[in-house]
Amino acid sequence: MMNGDRIVQFIAREDLIDLALGHPDPDLLPVDGLRRAAGAAFDRYGPDAVAYGSAAGPAPLISFVCARLEKIDGRAPSPSEVVLTAGNSYGLDQVATLLTRPGDAVLVESPTYHLAIRILREHPLDVIPISSDERGLRVSEVADAVFRLRQRGGRARLLYTVPTFNNPTGISLALDRRRELVALAASEGFTIAEDDVYRELAYEGEPPPSLWSMAEPGIVVRLGSFSKSLAPGLRVGYLTADEPTARRFSEGGLLESGGGISHFASLVVAEYALTGEYASNVLRLREEYRRRRDALTAALDAEVGDAARWISPDGGYFVWVTMREQADLAMLLELAEQHGTSFVPGPVFHPDGRGGQQSVRLAFSRYPAPMLAEAVRRIGSSLLSRPGHRAARA
Amino acid sequence: MMNGDRIVQFIAREDLIDLALGHPDPDLLPVDGLRRAAGAAFDRYGPDAVAYGSAAGPAPLISFVCARLEKIDGRAPSPSEVVLTAGNSYGLDQVATLLTRPGDAVLVESPTYHLAIRILREHPLDVIPISSDERGLRVSEVADAVFRLRQRGGRARLLYTVPTFNNPTGISLALDRRRELVALAASEGFTIAEDDVYRELAYEGEPPPSLWSMAEPGIVVRLGSFSKSLAPGLRVGYLTADEPTARRFSEGGLLESGGGISHFASLVVAEYALTGEYASNVLRLREEYRRRRDALTAALDAEVGDAARWISPDGGYFVWVTMREQADLAMLLELAEQHGTSFVPGPVFHPDGRGGQQSVRLAFSRYPAPMLAEAVRRIGSSLLSRPGHRAARA
Repeated sequence: MMNGDRIVQFIAREDLIDLALGHPDPDLLPVDGLRRAAGAAFDRYGPDAVAYGSAAGPAPLISFVCARLEKIDGRAPSPSEVVLTAGNSYGLDQVATLLTRPGDAVLVESPTYHLAIRILREHPLDVIPISSDERGLRVSEVADAVFRLRQRGGRARLLYTVPTFNNPTGISLALDRRRELVALAASEGFTIAEDDVYRELAYEGEPPPSLWSMAEPGIVVRLGSFSKSLAPGLRVGYLTADEPTARRFSEGGLLESGGGISHFASLVVAEYALTGEYASNVLRLREEYRRRRDALTAALDAEVGDAARWISPDGGYFVWVTMREQADLAMLLELAEQHGTSFVPGPVFHPDGRGGQQSVRLAFSRYPAPMLAEAVRRIGSSLLSRPGHRAARA
Repeated sequence: MMNGDRIVQFIAREDLIDLALGHPDPDLLPVDGLRRAAGAAFDRYGPDAVAYGSAAGPAPLISFVCARLEKIDGRAPSPSEVVLTAGNSYGLDQVATLLTRPGDAVLVESPTYHLAIRILREHPLDVIPISSDERGLRVSEVADAVFRLRQRGGRARLLYTVPTFNNPTGISLALDRRRELVALAASEGFTIAEDDVYRELAYEGEPPPSLWSMAEPGIVVRLGSFSKSLAPGLRVGYLTADEPTARRFSEGGLLESGGGISHFASLVVAEYALTGEYASNVLRLREEYRRRRDALTAALDAEVGDAARWISPDGGYFVWVTMREQADLAMLLELAEQHGTSFVPGPVFHPDGRGGQQSVRLAFSRYPAPMLAEAVRRIGSSLLSRPGHRAARA
């Protein structure tokens, strides 16, 4: 039976500390506060809590998004620049539906969030990978790709990127490259879909300003979410855009017909935010995830050491570990699972399947620090137990 | 400011009894029961209530959908044939994204639900209208359209229809035509997107069996919803399809990435259903809407009489009124609003804007019976006060 008795998407195997999935720790979801907020939404709004909602989303949450972005981003949107979404996957789906024409070329950084590629290809769009380095997306390669497309009579319509605390690399796009990228999008006329889902999870001071905040109106659609900063199963996110583009979403057939896409859940988030709990919950998450990141990278130092390199991320969920020698990732994954842990092999995040052959993504979001350290010990043991490794030392 | 201080989509003008919008009466939304259900969902599931949800939707609500359809449809789906949605607008959006190729031809009955046309065209699909009569969609015209498309080297990929308690006409497709339509879809290889949102609102015994229940697997995707039978702002619906097609939705990029699209709200609906309140709420709605339909049609008899004709619908929200003489609908609408009521003019529901020139859609869902009678009196006054009408009698 396909659906079985499933409630949640991801059920951790009892025998694994599974660093593969970028999910929050269930123990960090503020269940009691959200339970109170749900009751408060019914108390405050009565039938309006469950009637057809305003297409762009209920005003109280839109106002909160504006106020919150004033604190954590380069500039605050006006309410008319915000449309609530059912999370970033839905947001990207709607960007693809409403802002592209089928067969358009979409540039994506490589490695990138692999499921975003699926969404884009389903529309269907032609996905063109652009490589990145330790300063993020290579903007000069974007310019080259745009040029080549134009030579062939084509056109880059969209660029999808996770510039802040990237999935899978954890890296943030350097500030000078941010400037270059929004300037290039303006001059070449493509839209940037900025996946900004990790902005709240900044562990070393302020996160970089969003591309949206740096660009002239009409260049960037930023996709933000309450999935990482609050709870993913509420399915509440938002996009910020210039007002005309925001209207293309709120006045499109889907929202015009069904009203706001996460109406009731959006009011629950609004009530939760109003009490001040949202802000304190984010502080708590930052502290806990910082501890987890530090535990993971310290364990990597101790257990993997010279065999690999990685960059400790300033935010988000992930550490991207690249091995110094050739790696048979399929075998390493099998060994890791035998040793009681797991990860995602690098090629998964490359749209063309090339690249990432020596890399793995480790998520530090799901388990407390001691378990992360144990997982890395198991990865270290897996590395040492590889047949090839033994042979090399023999 | 675009979003203003909006919470809900539709704010009734104080001076109108507005029969234009197909919205439920706020007084019929079971706020207390849903408030309890939200608390119960947190109590039962804890963090799982707001974690990433199972992509197809949580099993308890899928089971309920199966059990419920066993009661109100020709056959029950198995759990693997059900995927939960964020309502039918979202469901149709995803049907268009995942089951069509851009530029495909989609056949739609005319008149039909106007916002569905918007959703289909945004994908973009080529919308071809098929006329209907008092027995519903003219299936012989579907066959003709399919033939003509094939002659031109094209192909009908999808047919969108509201065969049960149609929006806007209130009519249900006759049983023999249902059989012909699913047979035609099977032989010609197009998919039927069956918008089945009004099934629960049947006022004269059992609703007709869905096209989905009558067809071989792989022919029909049925879109069902809790928007009309419970509360639209929860944004919870479902689709039923054969298992391979259901998997195309649950294993598509959007749900694979974000998990179940209305996870928390789906658990709220499941808790509400478990108490037995859902079934008794539907009985209450049927009784109340039946009374409203009867009040509206009795008032039409009394106030409009020979000037128009209509068919009293066996279910749903709408009565489709067609005037016997030429009508200037723009002027009639203006007069109606001056008299304190409103409606939707017929051409809105025709994809090509042709047709419906003498028809209007009246919704009886939003107001209690006495107010509906008053609204029809006002429409009667508007008809009498038309300049053309006076001239004809002068």
